[in-house]
Amino acid sequence: RFYCSRMASSKGLFFRQLFESESSTYTYLLADVETREAVLIDPVLETIDRDLKLIHELGLHLNVAVNTHCHADHITSTGLMKTKLVGLKSAISKFSGATADILLSENDKITFGKHFLTVLETPGHTDGCVSLVVDDRSMVFTGDALLIRGCGRTDFQQGSPEKLYESIHQKIFTLPDECLVYPAHDYIGQLMSTVGEERKFNPRLTKSLDEFVNIMNNLNLPKPKKIDISVPANLVCGVYHV
Amino acid sequence: RFYCSRMASSKGLFFRQLFESESSTYTYLLADVETREAVLIDPVLETIDRDLKLIHELGLHLNVAVNTHCHADHITSTGLMKTKLVGLKSAISKFSGATADILLSENDKITFGKHFLTVLETPGHTDGCVSLVVDDRSMVFTGDALLIRGCGRTDFQQGSPEKLYESIHQKIFTLPDECLVYPAHDYIGQLMSTVGEERKFNPRLTKSLDEFVNIMNNLNLPKPKKIDISVPANLVCGVYHV
Ligand SMILES: [Fe+2]
Ligand SMILES: [Fe+2]
Repeated sequence: RFYCSRMASSKGLFFRQLFESESSTYTYLLADVETREAVLIDPVLETIDRDLKLIHELGLHLNVAVNTHCHADHITSTGLMKTKLVGLKSAISKFSGATADILLSENDKITFGKHFLTVLETPGHTDGCVSLVVDDRSMVFTGDALLIRGCGRTDFQQGSPEKLYESIHQKIFTLPDECLVYPAHDYIGQLMSTVGEERKFNPRLTKSLDEFVNIMNNLNLPKPKKIDISVPANLVCGVYHV
Repeated sequence: RFYCSRMASSKGLFFRQLFESESSTYTYLLADVETREAVLIDPVLETIDRDLKLIHELGLHLNVAVNTHCHADHITSTGLMKTKLVGLKSAISKFSGATADILLSENDKITFGKHFLTVLETPGHTDGCVSLVVDDRSMVFTGDALLIRGCGRTDFQQGSPEKLYESIHQKIFTLPDECLVYPAHDYIGQLMSTVGEERKFNPRLTKSLDEFVNIMNNLNLPKPKKIDISVPANLVCGVYHV
């Protein structure tokens, strides 16, 4: 079985992936080609000028800037961006503990023109992790739940390997094989994957639950360098006064 | 005018962009979904294991590994890859001065299954720079000729701002506005652009030839760190004995 990563779908959907190299974070810009309404996923404070420039050049109207969860490794730009773009609303899971204009729950829709993202609650890396699925199920933004041939760590911020395993298997792996997977991070230059590829080749998620829990409980990763400043900042959209 | 970056075209074409962070190089893997024949563009020595693993997982048969030019900032993996994949052929412009199995000229086709890349000679960064256009003109791989909101430097390796300006305007900018632009490098986390965007927003190429030449002759960039090892190595596909 072969997984094509370019599909003849989502006509009229503008899509652009962007990368922030210090935290290896991917930011995603989506827009309706006709109405120019747009959504930004996981924007990073360090790259706000680049992102605002692109939005401006393309003449987009940014409706919503959404975080897939309360990040521990970088500060979001959603709060600062709200001070620059009139009408912009921030969004994050209601289980994140963070403040935002829109608190997301399972099955909520984030609309931009005739397109929308559907919220899947995918806890396990944190309690407030969501994945976002494009209307025609051609793409999913998985945050730190499912990474390319990996997954988010579960050793802080309410992490639970059991919850993460269930989230990925019940919510993400039930999407079509051809659905493109766009994570919040990749550290070795992989940009995207597909649900089918991850179901088949992900070295952690192809294991049993017991083996998965054992792997996740023995990663012995260092604490993220910026966690003590990032998490408190991201609880308020990255700025303490917005 | 708005430029959609997801097009309902190239059905049956597998496409994957990859990134090497030390030299900020993009590598591209394309394949025919049915025959599984594949082409790799600008692979980097440091990421050969990642690339071979992906090719293996996906069950691809790599026909050709092509370099858009003789790179000065990293060593290609095409030579080493030939020792690992039976039948693989290396390719580069006949004006590069480098050895390879296939020496490319204007309008040559690099075929994989029912798909092919067409060679456009786009000198100026070096004499042997080519851009590669996907059969349906939905994507162009521009090497170091056209970069996103930039272009390759012209101050060494036969560099000529006049030639580069003509190459971009006559060859790349005559492609459709919607054609996706995939360069060999980006240093600020931009992953792709479109011909239409670059025609409109590229700060150098929107200038007159005289202004462009003046900009290019006054960049005062440092010499690439690896040029003295990369260029001799890349003249022989990255390995001296293949
Ligand atoms: Fe995270
Ligand atoms: Fe170059």
